[in-house]
Amino acid sequence: MSKLSTEHLLGIKYIQAEDIQTILATAQNFKEIINRPIKKVPSLREITVANLFFENSTRTRLSFELAEKRLSADVVNFSASGSSVSKGETLTDTVNNILAMKVDMIVMRHPNPGAAVFLARELQKYPKSAHARIVNAGDGTHEHPTQALLDAFSMQQKFGNLKGLNVVIVGDITHSRVALSNIFCLKKMGANVKLCGPATLIPKHIESLGVQVEHDLKKALEWCDVANVLRIQLERQDIKYFPSLREYALQYGVNRQVLDSLSKPITILHPGPINRGVEITGEVADSEHSLILDQVENGVAVRMAVLYLLAGTPNA
Amino acid sequence: MSKLSTEHLLGIKYIQAEDIQTILATAQNFKEIINRPIKKVPSLREITVANLFFENSTRTRLSFELAEKRLSADVVNFSASGSSVSKGETLTDTVNNILAMKVDMIVMRHPNPGAAVFLARELQKYPKSAHARIVNAGDGTHEHPTQALLDAFSMQQKFGNLKGLNVVIVGDITHSRVALSNIFCLKKMGANVKLCGPATLIPKHIESLGVQVEHDLKKALEWCDVANVLRIQLERQDIKYFPSLREYALQYGVNRQVLDSLSKPITILHPGPINRGVEITGEVADSEHSLILDQVENGVAVRMAVLYLLAGTPNA
Amino acid sequence: MSKLSTEHLLGIKYIQAEDIQTILATAQNFKEIINRPIKKVPSLREITVANLFFENSTRTRLSFELAEKRLSADVVNFSASGSSVSKGETLTDTVNNILAMKVDMIVMRHPNPGAAVFLARELQKYPKSAHARIVNAGDGTHEHPTQALLDAFSMQQKFGNLKGLNVVIVGDITHSRVALSNIFCLKKMGANVKLCGPATLIPKHIESLGVQVEHDLKKALEWCDVANVLRIQLERQDIKYFPSLREYALQYGVNRQVLDSLSKPITILHPGPINRGVEITGEVADSEHSLILDQVENGVAVRMAVLYLLAGTPNA
Repeated sequence: MSKLSTEHLLGIKYIQAEDIQTILATAQNFKEIINRPIKKVPSLREITVANLFFENSTRTRLSFELAEKRLSADVVNFSASGSSVSKGETLTDTVNNILAMKVDMIVMRHPNPGAAVFLARELQKYPKSAHARIVNAGDGTHEHPTQALLDAFSMQQKFGNLKGLNVVIVGDITHSRVALSNIFCLKKMGANVKLCGPATLIPKHIESLGVQVEHDLKKALEWCDVANVLRIQLERQDIKYFPSLREYALQYGVNRQVLDSLSKPITILHPGPINRGVEITGEVADSEHSLILDQVENGVAVRMAVLYLLAGTPNA
Repeated sequence: MSKLSTEHLLGIKYIQAEDIQTILATAQNFKEIINRPIKKVPSLREITVANLFFENSTRTRLSFELAEKRLSADVVNFSASGSSVSKGETLTDTVNNILAMKVDMIVMRHPNPGAAVFLARELQKYPKSAHARIVNAGDGTHEHPTQALLDAFSMQQKFGNLKGLNVVIVGDITHSRVALSNIFCLKKMGANVKLCGPATLIPKHIESLGVQVEHDLKKALEWCDVANVLRIQLERQDIKYFPSLREYALQYGVNRQVLDSLSKPITILHPGPINRGVEITGEVADSEHSLILDQVENGVAVRMAVLYLLAGTPNA
Repeated sequence: MSKLSTEHLLGIKYIQAEDIQTILATAQNFKEIINRPIKKVPSLREITVANLFFENSTRTRLSFELAEKRLSADVVNFSASGSSVSKGETLTDTVNNILAMKVDMIVMRHPNPGAAVFLARELQKYPKSAHARIVNAGDGTHEHPTQALLDAFSMQQKFGNLKGLNVVIVGDITHSRVALSNIFCLKKMGANVKLCGPATLIPKHIESLGVQVEHDLKKALEWCDVANVLRIQLERQDIKYFPSLREYALQYGVNRQVLDSLSKPITILHPGPINRGVEITGEVADSEHSLILDQVENGVAVRMAVLYLLAGTPNA
């Protein structure tokens, strides 16, 4: 099988369109495998993976853990609570220590934007750690590359190709690592991207990434083939970017009424966890046009592909 | 091997006497297996089980995890701390997401009474999740079916049969899922059941379940073959149902003196964790008439049986 | 392979010099194994190990977990948060329960000095638990035997032999389980030991253990072949044993200046996690004379050796 042009998956920004194609093609193979009764392959049985989650997560950690186990890797988990992080150790020292235990790959979620890139650069200074593979499982408001890849895979499964596809990303663009990774991924794959949300939640000059901004939800949806609806992060609402959840839902919530008013049905994506009745209604989330649970299934296949391809590069 | 009449184990209320007999017979086989040097069987090697613990637990989680591993299942753990529960996601969405990752069985502990029944009903609405098996590992004050099954198995191992056996359940009946599951199980198996405890901790009209109430501990113990002594849940004593732990111990504590005053020895069960010197003295807990550690051993065998039998039903 | 004179590893105080030699020789074998592409051996595939961590830890828990998995043991983890510890259960009952689930070995970290010794003594009272093996993974300020063993192994790898080696332990000797275990281990192996730190952090009468005290860091370093630099436990600084971290660093911090002033290079050990710029500078920690990451790698090999040798004793 083919390999990637990079040793780590730090962000979609840092990989090539060809890498994305390789990952999606490989994910297709793994999707078939995880739909068989025996879902395990021996591909990574010589590999040990540490999942380092410095921030809470359910679905992403479970998805990576299942991907690793189905590749027959040895898996150890570490979460920030119960860690030496509070003991004043640097991130680089923590990871160098784990790697010294003959761990081959690090899947890391971290609250700080750029943590994965920083870590990969730091490890180059330590000959014994330089061989490690880093997979960014979300670094603050920066990137969440495997989410963008599973979104792309889900769209490709439905539409065959992303080239020329019209995709609108709806919601809090400013604070969303999912949005940024999706923008990079969709542009590299030739899709057209619009962003939709309150002006307070869309970064200025974002058009420089080759995307358009449309503040009117109905107009944005009318234009698109796919709407990727971001969750409003209730837990981060200490600063107010919009008057209330109810007002947000009225203006930017994706519901049956607005979808029925469009000239054609559109496909709905959401990275989860969903807030039913806020950014999306339950009716829309559960509808035939929603790929939400397909995205979750595809996430395991895409993560298997990423781990498999990175582990397979020559200097592993 | 035989199967069960149900796809889930939501509570003893919802299964048949024949199911209980099947589970106990199967547990006997697994008990032999876990007493061999090699304790593993390949029965569930195609099955992935997620242990979802929305409430703290040590012994129940470890017991299920060991049962799953000895059946060669793939196991992922999830506990409420570090979860998306705080992110506003519904229970159904959380579980649907986990199932979309090709998880086959859910073992769930939840603080809300009825959570497991609710979940099983909800999943029917989602074709892709309808195949999943749910095992209730304790839902608030409602049921804890595997505890009742391991209690029944422990009594059957000692007495050969539960039919006609006199069993008294001592303690806080109102708030105990162990008591309710035991009542259903013992009645279905033909045992006679008395409840004993302060009037404040025994529900009104509980006799409608076919049990008797006896407030005098000595009389209750004199009548019984087996006393199942419930723990006083120290951590839930914000509301006071009795004057003090010391007074509870004096009136309802099972100690050497009261046992010596009986006309014959009785067998002692306790679901653990025990509060030595409160509901039971250490001397009694450690005595030859106590089955407490046998219960723990039997718990693994019974949980292996439940997982094995549910996974084996035709539409798995 | 040879066995040990003891059934548990409770502390270096309780084992013989021959045991240490056996462990180090066995660790040498396992170090070779974990440097192969396939790092797993089937040695403990009939063994179930429970890691009970009543206190936070990253590296020690991961190191034990990787050691166990590479020996093919079945592993279950338990940490104090999420435990029945808060429910009033005794330590002995908690462990008896876990052992009743057919767990063979307990690796325990506990905040109380002597917890492992206490537990091993208690379990003798329970015939069904008496066979269990206990490995002390750190008990408060008492002992951390596998740390001392991995330190010894790291020194042996560098110097061939510990006999006659001059080792200074620098830092908070009073509160350090690493220091105490190292003192016992080094003395049993024939090394010469000096302790260096502020008088407030060195126990009175410690010379009775056969060690010397030297308050002047430069003199201590000039004398030694190896300096084992202990971390200042920032999280325990509610009581002040020295004026400030800055003053500590000035007087007892191991930095390039003090090392350059010595007549010969010395080898640096540190049990981690390191506080760069406090007890050691980053420059020294990352230098060619530092064995810090070797210690971490050796830790897995040493723990594999301990688990393997204990499990192999006749009455396992």
